[in-house]
Amino acid sequence: MKRALFTLQELSEFVGANIVGDPEVEIHGLASLELASKADLAHFSHPRYRSLLTKTLAGAVILREGDTNIWNGNALVVKDPYLAFARISHLFAPNIEMPIGIDAAARVAPTADIHASVSVGPGTLIGERCVLAKGVQVDANCVIGDDTIIGSHSVLKANTVLYSQVRIGQSCIVHSNSVIGADGFGFVPDHEGHLESIAQIGGVTIGNRVSIGAGTTIDRGTLHDTVVSDGVKIDNQVQIGHNCRIGEHTVICGCVGIAGSVTIGKYCIVAGACGIGGSGPLEITDNVTITAGTNVLTSIEEPGTYSGGTFHAKTRLWKRNAMRFRSLDLISKRISALERQIRKWNEKI
Amino acid sequence: MKRALFTLQELSEFVGANIVGDPEVEIHGLASLELASKADLAHFSHPRYRSLLTKTLAGAVILREGDTNIWNGNALVVKDPYLAFARISHLFAPNIEMPIGIDAAARVAPTADIHASVSVGPGTLIGERCVLAKGVQVDANCVIGDDTIIGSHSVLKANTVLYSQVRIGQSCIVHSNSVIGADGFGFVPDHEGHLESIAQIGGVTIGNRVSIGAGTTIDRGTLHDTVVSDGVKIDNQVQIGHNCRIGEHTVICGCVGIAGSVTIGKYCIVAGACGIGGSGPLEITDNVTITAGTNVLTSIEEPGTYSGGTFHAKTRLWKRNAMRFRSLDLISKRISALERQIRKWNEKI
Amino acid sequence: MKRALFTLQELSEFVGANIVGDPEVEIHGLASLELASKADLAHFSHPRYRSLLTKTLAGAVILREGDTNIWNGNALVVKDPYLAFARISHLFAPNIEMPIGIDAAARVAPTADIHASVSVGPGTLIGERCVLAKGVQVDANCVIGDDTIIGSHSVLKANTVLYSQVRIGQSCIVHSNSVIGADGFGFVPDHEGHLESIAQIGGVTIGNRVSIGAGTTIDRGTLHDTVVSDGVKIDNQVQIGHNCRIGEHTVICGCVGIAGSVTIGKYCIVAGACGIGGSGPLEITDNVTITAGTNVLTSIEEPGTYSGGTFHAKTRLWKRNAMRFRSLDLISKRISALERQIRKWNEKI
Repeated sequence: MKRALFTLQELSEFVGANIVGDPEVEIHGLASLELASKADLAHFSHPRYRSLLTKTLAGAVILREGDTNIWNGNALVVKDPYLAFARISHLFAPNIEMPIGIDAAARVAPTADIHASVSVGPGTLIGERCVLAKGVQVDANCVIGDDTIIGSHSVLKANTVLYSQVRIGQSCIVHSNSVIGADGFGFVPDHEGHLESIAQIGGVTIGNRVSIGAGTTIDRGTLHDTVVSDGVKIDNQVQIGHNCRIGEHTVICGCVGIAGSVTIGKYCIVAGACGIGGSGPLEITDNVTITAGTNVLTSIEEPGTYSGGTFHAKTRLWKRNAMRFRSLDLISKRISALERQIRKWNEKI
Repeated sequence: MKRALFTLQELSEFVGANIVGDPEVEIHGLASLELASKADLAHFSHPRYRSLLTKTLAGAVILREGDTNIWNGNALVVKDPYLAFARISHLFAPNIEMPIGIDAAARVAPTADIHASVSVGPGTLIGERCVLAKGVQVDANCVIGDDTIIGSHSVLKANTVLYSQVRIGQSCIVHSNSVIGADGFGFVPDHEGHLESIAQIGGVTIGNRVSIGAGTTIDRGTLHDTVVSDGVKIDNQVQIGHNCRIGEHTVICGCVGIAGSVTIGKYCIVAGACGIGGSGPLEITDNVTITAGTNVLTSIEEPGTYSGGTFHAKTRLWKRNAMRFRSLDLISKRISALERQIRKWNEKI
Repeated sequence: MKRALFTLQELSEFVGANIVGDPEVEIHGLASLELASKADLAHFSHPRYRSLLTKTLAGAVILREGDTNIWNGNALVVKDPYLAFARISHLFAPNIEMPIGIDAAARVAPTADIHASVSVGPGTLIGERCVLAKGVQVDANCVIGDDTIIGSHSVLKANTVLYSQVRIGQSCIVHSNSVIGADGFGFVPDHEGHLESIAQIGGVTIGNRVSIGAGTTIDRGTLHDTVVSDGVKIDNQVQIGHNCRIGEHTVICGCVGIAGSVTIGKYCIVAGACGIGGSGPLEITDNVTITAGTNVLTSIEEPGTYSGGTFHAKTRLWKRNAMRFRSLDLISKRISALERQIRKWNEKI
């Protein structure tokens, strides 16, 4: 069904929408409310964009029943416009399927088990005893170590590295220059304070429908596997240390660093640039949201939304406040002293 | 003109400097004031290094008119020593130009349009309908997706990945293992809280004279392009999310994470390890400097210098203060109560 | 000696342990106390796991003399169980040695000096005048610039990039997709505020027994080398700017960003996600530990443990506190005013 021209009727059937206006209007592409032209479908998913809706030139808009009064044009009416837009978006994405088969400039170990429908790009290496299931696509210049398994319809983009003994589930995508299965960071000081390495003997297990961003690293476990569960979505430049366990359907945004032996529950959201990890293993329960830039140094046992850090401010003002932070404990004690003094007088008077 | 031997006279002409001392002195290399020998040219650009200037063994020093009294040796006198040093530095850089032509171990799609002066290294792939203009150099093991355009004299270092529909301007440099054009991080929860992806249909547009560091990632836009404007300099391990717009001549230092849909103005400086992004689109106006380690969660509408976070301190002290931060609001209320009490008494007395 | 079956007797000799129990018990693998079966050796290195020790099914446990009373089974008794475990771990690690020799699909410049015992994987490029000493292993798809030297028994994992003039010592490991020697981030504004680059003419010197994680970047120096000393261990996604000097046996955990011209002493520990760098060169003395998520903006002259930042909290509470941080200086002044008022009254009364 992937082409660049659909009638509103076709799109409404695809997402189960009601149509307002002309079902025969032709949609050639998707665009934002702001930049849409007559041939485009836009979506109105957040009240923040209400003023753009009133001005958009879009040929049709996906919106909620309750918003039909502020838009006179063609519309696809749904319960969840953003979800409908997400589903329709794939109809308009360019087809970048790789050709089926192993490129002549790839190298696949003789003991690897590669399904006939797999695509392997040039410059890619696949190690001994690897298994690549139905429909797997491994783009150019990837390197896959021995005994690694990739489930059906998973995609590795160019220049990705999987070390040995990595297990990836079905329908995953791993973006370029990510590294899965590198040695965990395990060292012990000897009696002179020199650091000896601990062999990282565990592997990595990634569930189904996991998305892993560009430049992300997930280390192999020390003795057992590092685990990323089904449906987890990981953005770019995320670091997941050895022995971590990330629960189902959790979202980890860009630049998050997760230390070794951290367990994160299901349906969590870790916003951008958070750091999670303290002096020992640490656990975040299910349904926890952590807002951007928060350092989490201790476990979180109760579901909810957590934050840390400070707001930005003009540097001069910030500096004065940050200097005072250095004596915050003292400030608190000075208040207590004042309160005691006042209490004494209150008693006297 | 690239060789490793210049007279002071030649260098003075190259940067428009006045000479103090012997114009015939031969300069074989560049060095810091601290480590320079007689054959080296050093520069004195910051008062912090004054004591080093008085002791340097350099054969000549680039400095300001006003500093000639503290240095008896040969000198290039300029208005801006650091800028003059920057310009001279390129004379002494080793020549690492690649051989012109497409390496036999590269693979270029038949529909790609490659200028005769282009260099393409071994192991590199170039997709369908790509355009590589005059003097472009693409080093080894890069992968370039379909419909990507690289402007004249731009350089991609080894193992860089450009996805499809990336447009890079003229005279850019992209360092190794960076990824431009990976899918933006766009997901919508369905009715069970499982996350569905939004196809990322936009591309990336990079202006002219943009520098992009190693391991940096710039995601493609959702519907329209992510944009990095002319003259922007981006350091290593920076993450720029989908739909961002970075204004002309802005500097983004290492390890900065910029969430999706962030707009940053012209002539901004984002120092290292800052995080920019909140719960929705966010805008930083022109001429804003953000100091190192600052989280910016809301828009900045006024030019100026902004900071956030706290200073480091001995852990014991820090811990006491950080614990008090948890009751800062209460602290403030306790002060208000004290002030009210005092006011009452003042009225009584 | 690498096989997957040892008697307790053999292992005790390997690490100099005393045996409690049956010296002939056969150990097939390593496992955690929690997951060990009868054929596994586990270790009890931290009191935190005491309850697991009492329940473990392990065939033998490495522990301290003082802990023999809480474990009835076979044991290897040592002074430092974690160190003994680290040493034994390598006996059970799978052998992933590369085949000796230069792969037919690698390309080595004719002037490079490659020891006969070196392994070079397919797709790897080695530049002019490089030197690869005895036992070096360079995995697939690496790119090594001209004049780069790798000391004996060092290993580069797949897709690593070393630019020109990088010197790596003996017995180092560099994990995948790391980049060593990219241009430092040096720019000078010209008279219009446009940024001109400074050629980065220095190289990088890495000592012996250095470990470098996946996706880590270490920039070349401006005029002289960036230096990482013997025994330093660097985790994933660390950024080390140009002209930095990292002292012997220092540990740098994941996602740490170190700005240019930072000097860090010996035996330091920089925990995860710290940022180090201010407005100029900055120095951290020996034996400094910096805890996770700390921004260090100024030099540290005294050994010890340092921290920064705030604890996480429920977002509503955090927000109220973070808003108050913006007036912390004012809060402090209000307290001083109250104290003055109280003092006055105290004098009166």
